[in-house]
Amino acid sequence: MTSPAAPSSTLILLRHGESTWNDLGLFTGWVDVPLSEKGHAEAIRGGQMLKETGLLPDVLHTSLLRRAINTAQLALDEADRHWIDVRRSWRLNERHYGDLQGKDKKSTLQEYGEEQFQLWRRSYNTPPPEISDTNEYSQAGDPRYADLGDAAPKTECLADVVVRLEPYLYGPIADDLRAGKVTLVTAHGNSLRAVVKLLDGVSDKDIAGLNIPTGIPLRYDLDADLKPITPGGVYLDPDAAKAAINAVANQGR
Amino acid sequence: MTSPAAPSSTLILLRHGESTWNDLGLFTGWVDVPLSEKGHAEAIRGGQMLKETGLLPDVLHTSLLRRAINTAQLALDEADRHWIDVRRSWRLNERHYGDLQGKDKKSTLQEYGEEQFQLWRRSYNTPPPEISDTNEYSQAGDPRYADLGDAAPKTECLADVVVRLEPYLYGPIADDLRAGKVTLVTAHGNSLRAVVKLLDGVSDKDIAGLNIPTGIPLRYDLDADLKPITPGGVYLDPDAAKAAINAVANQGR
Repeated sequence: MTSPAAPSSTLILLRHGESTWNDLGLFTGWVDVPLSEKGHAEAIRGGQMLKETGLLPDVLHTSLLRRAINTAQLALDEADRHWIDVRRSWRLNERHYGDLQGKDKKSTLQEYGEEQFQLWRRSYNTPPPEISDTNEYSQAGDPRYADLGDAAPKTECLADVVVRLEPYLYGPIADDLRAGKVTLVTAHGNSLRAVVKLLDGVSDKDIAGLNIPTGIPLRYDLDADLKPITPGGVYLDPDAAKAAINAVANQGR
Repeated sequence: MTSPAAPSSTLILLRHGESTWNDLGLFTGWVDVPLSEKGHAEAIRGGQMLKETGLLPDVLHTSLLRRAINTAQLALDEADRHWIDVRRSWRLNERHYGDLQGKDKKSTLQEYGEEQFQLWRRSYNTPPPEISDTNEYSQAGDPRYADLGDAAPKTECLADVVVRLEPYLYGPIADDLRAGKVTLVTAHGNSLRAVVKLLDGVSDKDIAGLNIPTGIPLRYDLDADLKPITPGGVYLDPDAAKAAINAVANQGR
């Protein structure tokens, strides 16, 4: 028997707290909505967990969306790590929800039926219809994506997110991990699913069933090949994470 | 007569809003105090000015101190530019106030007398006594300055700030300006004095008399040699800036 590999680097994943649109039941995707009051409090609590456990990030990676950026700012300020280096990428953005962006979830379910609705929400390979450039919730003309040109997505399935995230995970994030930096990634439900899928080798079929709770830092100790020492990582507050995951699982029943 | 040089790049200087220690009348320097409620509002107002005038930063440079970092976050969030690249450096920090850090300004004036007090506050070349590593307001042991080692200052006069700031202004900040990026620098009364001294060629004697108001963006259009097109720059709200500068001048009377 070989003993487990010694950890070589530490990655922390933090899903942003509740946004104002979570609360309203709207598809969000790349629409840049702010945190709700509850989301604000979740971010601060996440920072307290970092401080209490002494898990102090050396560098931050965020998406280009306000809810992830503000979550990081609030958490790091709370942990007295507001001064660390910051890197951002659209590759950490939430899944682009296409033409569903800005639409009410309940009305969409009624209009398209349960099967189509669940395919768009939870299948690995089926994106929603593309959003039109003239849709008020389109990102066409948003200066933060201008450099992407025609490569800017107009809809995405989870498989698309994995494809665009992979070069960032094994590029800039891996560079910081290999430099020995405790690396915090604040991002979104689906972009963090993509990270976990790549790190843990989760199957296309199983990844949609994996729910990462908001505001609870998830720690991955990685070996020199960036393989997790403990598959699935370790939540800084395991009881709170379990309760949040069970609550999501019970929603579907 | 030659016509004025065409602007080649744009630099925006923003002094952080009021901190909790401004209000208490304590020497602050490198002590990492937060913004006051008023400072919070000043930062947001600064962001509104950026938005109203359409002067939208492409990249942010901040010090390592919370009051400048939070000012930038609040202003950029307000201007919908929260997603731009961020760079930080201790070289943009406030002047290190040495052994005076944490001390009450009024008591210090009484203890040392007007002449010594004004030398420490406003002379170009006279630093306060060094702070001891065991002083509760020392930055010895602060992880953000660990890389500096023995080069970390224990006191500074304004001349020292100019010396440590110059390589950052004509290094990373100049790199962004030459790349055509609208560059926002959020920093402190004395580090911004140092920037203005270098850009405008202000004399050692005159620079202490220059007061940059808090929370009002100061725009410098620069030529290809990084010389100001308009010496002294242009405040985005000139009337508010003038009123703030006059208020400071009248304090001394």
